[in-house]
Amino acid sequence: MNEVPHEAPLPSFAAGGGLLPAIAQDARSGQVLMLAFMNEEAWRQTLATGEVHYFSRSRGRLWKKGESSGHVQRLVQALVDCDGDAILLRVEQAGGAACHTGHASCFFRRWESGRWAVVGQPVFDPAAVYGQAAD
Amino acid sequence: MNEVPHEAPLPSFAAGGGLLPAIAQDARSGQVLMLAFMNEEAWRQTLATGEVHYFSRSRGRLWKKGESSGHVQRLVQALVDCDGDAILLRVEQAGGAACHTGHASCFFRRWESGRWAVVGQPVFDPAAVYGQAAD
Repeated sequence: MNEVPHEAPLPSFAAGGGLLPAIAQDARSGQVLMLAFMNEEAWRQTLATGEVHYFSRSRGRLWKKGESSGHVQRLVQALVDCDGDAILLRVEQAGGAACHTGHASCFFRRWESGRWAVVGQPVFDPAAVYGQAAD
Repeated sequence: MNEVPHEAPLPSFAAGGGLLPAIAQDARSGQVLMLAFMNEEAWRQTLATGEVHYFSRSRGRLWKKGESSGHVQRLVQALVDCDGDAILLRVEQAGGAACHTGHASCFFRRWESGRWAVVGQPVFDPAAVYGQAAD
């Protein structure tokens, strides 16, 4: 893979014990799609390929978003926060939905008058898209 | 403080070792302002008071956003993700800036052609707003 130039400051993965939270935001609508974690390899692969990679904490391995579903995230812009310990990815979301439940955003439950309310409708049927694995 | 109803499912703070990442997004513009962490007390205080509280990992204590600067975040909407382990707060940001550097967003550095570029101008002068502490 292509190397990120050595002189470039990276996000401070060491500060997060090797993992930093990364927010994916739809570059066009501004909708926050999901939050996952990146290690340095995920960060470098994302910059090198232009497709977003995370580190799956449950599976303990590098995870290309959409590897099962085809719902990849094309990187439009990557930003880092003031402390260098959080990442914001502005993306184009393939398939119109980031969430394995079929919702456009993983944040589809809103706190409303003392209970959780579901926001919007699923865009796809998870059973039709996934086998056993979901991403 | 007011109690969140017991029957309401909470974000799964246990899943995150007591802390979950929380994204603050400007409710009007959609700009992602910052990422910080909440423990259950911060979550409950945020719902009870309508002003966003986090848990400061560096200070090891509950932290009301804006307690030093006056740049509080008024909660407009709280959402939780599919796994219950990340929080999205749609807020009104007092003072026009969330970042202690004076930038509207903590995400003010963009990866561009192999290096980091600063996005936009600070809204305020940190030296004029803060004494020793910054939030």
